[in-house]
Amino acid sequence: MRNSPFLPNRPLKVAVLGSSGAVGSELLKILEERDFPISELVLLSSQRSEGKIVKWKGEEIITKKASKEEFLNVDLVLASAGGSISKQWLSTVKDQNAVLIDNSSAFRLENDVPLVVPEVNACEALKHNGVIANPNCTTILLTLVLAPLNKISPIKRVIVSTYQSVSGAGQLAMEELQFLTKKYLQGDPKESEVLPYSLAFNLFLHNSPMLSNNYCEEEMKMTNETRKILNITDLKLSSTCVRVPVLRAHSESVNVEFDDVIKPSYAINQLKKAKGLEIIEDYEKNRFPMPNDVMGRDNIAVGRIRTDISNSNGLELWLCGDQIRKGAALNAVQIAELLIAKK
Amino acid sequence: MRNSPFLPNRPLKVAVLGSSGAVGSELLKILEERDFPISELVLLSSQRSEGKIVKWKGEEIITKKASKEEFLNVDLVLASAGGSISKQWLSTVKDQNAVLIDNSSAFRLENDVPLVVPEVNACEALKHNGVIANPNCTTILLTLVLAPLNKISPIKRVIVSTYQSVSGAGQLAMEELQFLTKKYLQGDPKESEVLPYSLAFNLFLHNSPMLSNNYCEEEMKMTNETRKILNITDLKLSSTCVRVPVLRAHSESVNVEFDDVIKPSYAINQLKKAKGLEIIEDYEKNRFPMPNDVMGRDNIAVGRIRTDISNSNGLELWLCGDQIRKGAALNAVQIAELLIAKK
Repeated sequence: MRNSPFLPNRPLKVAVLGSSGAVGSELLKILEERDFPISELVLLSSQRSEGKIVKWKGEEIITKKASKEEFLNVDLVLASAGGSISKQWLSTVKDQNAVLIDNSSAFRLENDVPLVVPEVNACEALKHNGVIANPNCTTILLTLVLAPLNKISPIKRVIVSTYQSVSGAGQLAMEELQFLTKKYLQGDPKESEVLPYSLAFNLFLHNSPMLSNNYCEEEMKMTNETRKILNITDLKLSSTCVRVPVLRAHSESVNVEFDDVIKPSYAINQLKKAKGLEIIEDYEKNRFPMPNDVMGRDNIAVGRIRTDISNSNGLELWLCGDQIRKGAALNAVQIAELLIAKK
Repeated sequence: MRNSPFLPNRPLKVAVLGSSGAVGSELLKILEERDFPISELVLLSSQRSEGKIVKWKGEEIITKKASKEEFLNVDLVLASAGGSISKQWLSTVKDQNAVLIDNSSAFRLENDVPLVVPEVNACEALKHNGVIANPNCTTILLTLVLAPLNKISPIKRVIVSTYQSVSGAGQLAMEELQFLTKKYLQGDPKESEVLPYSLAFNLFLHNSPMLSNNYCEEEMKMTNETRKILNITDLKLSSTCVRVPVLRAHSESVNVEFDDVIKPSYAINQLKKAKGLEIIEDYEKNRFPMPNDVMGRDNIAVGRIRTDISNSNGLELWLCGDQIRKGAALNAVQIAELLIAKK
């Protein structure tokens, strides 16, 4: 059992599990950018990427296959290799008294595992027992916007349609979209191999497994994770998740119903004060958030905040955020930063 | 004043106004495919396309600049050249006792102008006074699905997010999407000139003019036109219209609230019986409508019809339809067919 939720107050031994994927690569970039206190960085991957050399802070680091030995004396593990891999190494990580910040859905809904968006529920992070879960990308973006609004008036119901980039399906899917689009433009269309259907000038409903209520896993993640993060256990939330031919930023069309009438101007003021957000909203120039605005950036963008004409207690709004960055890697590193006691 | 709403019972002189655009070209194709009774086909366009030679049923037809003379003895005008052009020629068309079927928004909400989706409100077409309006593309697709459901239980509220292809912005926009995508893939990204922003692996909120309620014209068309077509004057409908990098098929994520609980299986049975629709819904194979399914086809596709988990009186559903075809040209020709008295 840990004595303190905090990480040791010294440079840390950090392992990145799944370091060769789209999110893994971004984790390394963000750890460097934010000068995270690291004494030793261990890159762990599947057998396929073993031996891959990665440059980090001027050093060359060799990617290794995960093994018990590699986790010895580790302080922090940032995992983005899928739920089964995280589960496989959990006891090893706990044996080292280390903290696992996990990007998979494996632990997100477990009672003793905090599910954290630092701008929204930072205090939850300190309640961990060795594991903190990083929410699903679409949920992170959505809760960043819903949390400040929920302080104005309790949210009763949310209806979301997503426009999800291909990065959420991984590096190979990003490459496939570009390849299939190129072939299409050359008049030589090809079938997809990574994704179930070609996304070249096409789109499809999210292909995660279907559940008994005919929502897919991705959609129910949004419902269940948003409830946990906002701490509204009975929140009504229905979503339709769609994969679109965009490379790495997700967008969401969001209809929110509140207990009371909220003026859009008041909502915008609250969102302006919130961290991690920026407003892009110029009605005269017809200028609102686009994936291209947020690609490679930390902030998510929100705009088109208007009173729902079908419900005076409702707001319609639109948001975009970088899926790999705030939707995954950045949020994980920000969680780790919460565990570094302020001096 | 016309004596009869029907067109004369003989091969007709038909003028296509705006024949060189994306919808105009499709109109010619559909008139040929459906063997519409034509004695003389006149192609009218802007000065830019004057003199363009078009093959139709094996003949070569020269595109002419619109003038009073060209409309002489015309029976039917299919217009897709924008509202101002339609308004400009309306009295000329009426002087010939001809019928104008107009694809612009100029007359859609006028009291004495029927707004028609033949599968939904065919009887309205016969109430015309020389002009029948073809609804906006997104409205045609939506009402095709809402009308059969509204017969089961009255619809109270609809929330829509669209995924609109670039064809709705015209032929040049379609070419620009392909050009900008090609340049992006070559590592040489370019600025857009036709559309306000590049759609290459990007998307943006519909750029039609903003109204005082902070909805855009495209969104309010959906509200107002759906009310008129379904004849539900107080229908609550809120939409968010989004342009996505898809070439010619629109998709819509639709949340519908009814007076009563409707079982999805019952809704699907009603939709199966409806004309102009097909169901694509295989939960085991995770197979639902995609733009690629409907491109170049008459039917629109609907699927993922499920009980809204946020409202037991609600259904969530997803639809795709070819914007140029059923969303515009096909619907216009089908309206014209309603005016041909059955022998």
